[in-house]
Amino acid sequence: MNKYYLMTPGPTPVPSEALLAQARPMIHHRAPIYTQILLGVLEDLKYVFQTKNDIFIFASSGTGAMESAVANLFSTGDKVIVVSTGNFGERWAQISQAFGLKVIKLEYEWGTRANPDDIAKALEENPDTKGVLATHAETSTGVVNDVKAMAQITKGFPEVILIVDAVSGLGACELRQDEWEIDVVVSGSQKALMAPPGLAFASVGEKAWGHVEQSNLPKFYFSYKKYRDALNKPSPQSPFTPAVSTIMALGEALKLIKKEGLENVWERHRVLAKATREGVKALGLELFAPEDERANSVTAIKSPNGIDSTQIVKIMREKYNITIAGGQSKVKGKIFRIGHCGYYDKFDILTTLAALERTLNELGINVKLGTGVSAAEKVFAEANL
Amino acid sequence: MNKYYLMTPGPTPVPSEALLAQARPMIHHRAPIYTQILLGVLEDLKYVFQTKNDIFIFASSGTGAMESAVANLFSTGDKVIVVSTGNFGERWAQISQAFGLKVIKLEYEWGTRANPDDIAKALEENPDTKGVLATHAETSTGVVNDVKAMAQITKGFPEVILIVDAVSGLGACELRQDEWEIDVVVSGSQKALMAPPGLAFASVGEKAWGHVEQSNLPKFYFSYKKYRDALNKPSPQSPFTPAVSTIMALGEALKLIKKEGLENVWERHRVLAKATREGVKALGLELFAPEDERANSVTAIKSPNGIDSTQIVKIMREKYNITIAGGQSKVKGKIFRIGHCGYYDKFDILTTLAALERTLNELGINVKLGTGVSAAEKVFAEANL
Repeated sequence: MNKYYLMTPGPTPVPSEALLAQARPMIHHRAPIYTQILLGVLEDLKYVFQTKNDIFIFASSGTGAMESAVANLFSTGDKVIVVSTGNFGERWAQISQAFGLKVIKLEYEWGTRANPDDIAKALEENPDTKGVLATHAETSTGVVNDVKAMAQITKGFPEVILIVDAVSGLGACELRQDEWEIDVVVSGSQKALMAPPGLAFASVGEKAWGHVEQSNLPKFYFSYKKYRDALNKPSPQSPFTPAVSTIMALGEALKLIKKEGLENVWERHRVLAKATREGVKALGLELFAPEDERANSVTAIKSPNGIDSTQIVKIMREKYNITIAGGQSKVKGKIFRIGHCGYYDKFDILTTLAALERTLNELGINVKLGTGVSAAEKVFAEANL
Repeated sequence: MNKYYLMTPGPTPVPSEALLAQARPMIHHRAPIYTQILLGVLEDLKYVFQTKNDIFIFASSGTGAMESAVANLFSTGDKVIVVSTGNFGERWAQISQAFGLKVIKLEYEWGTRANPDDIAKALEENPDTKGVLATHAETSTGVVNDVKAMAQITKGFPEVILIVDAVSGLGACELRQDEWEIDVVVSGSQKALMAPPGLAFASVGEKAWGHVEQSNLPKFYFSYKKYRDALNKPSPQSPFTPAVSTIMALGEALKLIKKEGLENVWERHRVLAKATREGVKALGLELFAPEDERANSVTAIKSPNGIDSTQIVKIMREKYNITIAGGQSKVKGKIFRIGHCGYYDKFDILTTLAALERTLNELGINVKLGTGVSAAEKVFAEANL
């Protein structure tokens, strides 16, 4: 008997409060009983985004919210700067190209983060730029980008908006939309927000509404105007049938975040990440990203001794019933990733490190059992977690 | 104490087997444990659609699947015929217009169904037509369109495909995609399929793939090619994170449909619909649609004596905790609708009729209590249900 452990950077474990909310009988989405739930969710989402904006909730995965930003904010042939530090930066480029935008791509080596100065330079060189599309925490490489510094740059350009994909970062790594003046933040339910996948969010600031007014790209299901109009009805609602069960789960998960306190949640993620890193370093493994660029949502680790990292993922899953993630795209086979974004505590990390120790031994890499675990324990003890 | 009864045409009640599946711990969507569930769902969906096509499952509401059809099958300026018999026919027109198609709209009086001969005539007059967009069961008016006859017409035009919105009809009213030669059918999880809202489906036939190849409209999240490629991987999956919990619920709901047998499910809906109609007629109320045009998924009833139908909906909800639906758009205030599409049995109908009897009395319309209930009971008894 091996219990199942989900240690990927999304979907992430869902607390029982949220899971059980989904077992509640179905209710109608245009009745007062639902409105009350929706209003609570919207208020708590604003807290997590640290914004006063209306937040639109789509029944879709995070990619849907990314597409919503492109389709609602730009017109055919508009020039945008895509800041690409990994797989999800590439996704911004792919969506933008699919919708006929001109993409200037600032590409960074996978495992490093973007230099905001490059954005300033690219904006000077391209005065016709309409937007900058960036990634907060880049799940594929485990780095976090300095979106605060990016916003300091874009705010100086009256025609340029900054759009941040915070699907995996929101709730795990510090982000303060209004204070940092980020025009649009998109996110999803299934990462640090601790709810099941199936909901995506867009928080659209005032400067960005000017772009919405000018946009000529086709949209319907993801139309910001339709969502805004539905929220502004006497009884706030969504224009299309919402994913009622998942909304109920999200409501419960957000209550837990509010109870813990957002800054405490960020701090917990910082300690979980630090312990994971100290644990794997104690095992002689090398981290993928430089120390001050690492996201607290996921730890990316180089596979040792030329071993294909899919082997590590496979043994972890088949022998220990622990699902971690391999590398995507360019770094497939080269790295593996341990998620600690959302509903995780210290013992999840210790469990995973213990299984990793045994997995490494099975692959012929000699590590003393307990080495990684004790290094992580020390971090938790010092942090009083 | 009044129990909650959901008698709207979507979302519909979800059986406990499906609700409880959503309380299961989250699992990873690219691991074997999920693949097994997905394969079962796909097989059972094909049974419900009566098709051999690949079926794409989107995390979205039904409107997302409608948009997917427009965005994947057509190009800017393409001419399409929209068959509009109500609110959801109008939605086809709105989406098509939002995506820059030229729309020829065949409009029918609300509460009546389309005449397939008109489609033949419109196709003759517009030889450059690329597609016909129609509605199976039109939820807003309670009629069902003869999509089988429509397919007999479109199959004679090599460049024309028929796309059917069966969001509320599938599983309630007979539909056999392959036998009837319907090129594309879209649907959703939250109606007769008895699962929570949040999933939408597209079943795309061979003739339609030619249209996909030619389409130049922007799409990413709803791209059929991306979904097809993901299904064709060694381990079938979706291109973007699926709504895992809702998929698990759908899996359980589909098992119940399979166990009952699709033809038995259709027959149950026929009897539920007939009993509802006989019940309201016995109360002296008038049905909205002509007898042979009525959908078995929902019964639309004219509000009597000039009473605003929102009053009936309100009393039913506030006094009896039964949610029924009012009229949408053109018929707002004029009709009310009782849903019986999905997880309903005879006693749900009797309950609703009993509450309706009391509601009518409260509105000053004198009906003898039990009149509607007994008329419905008779139908159930005769049908041995």
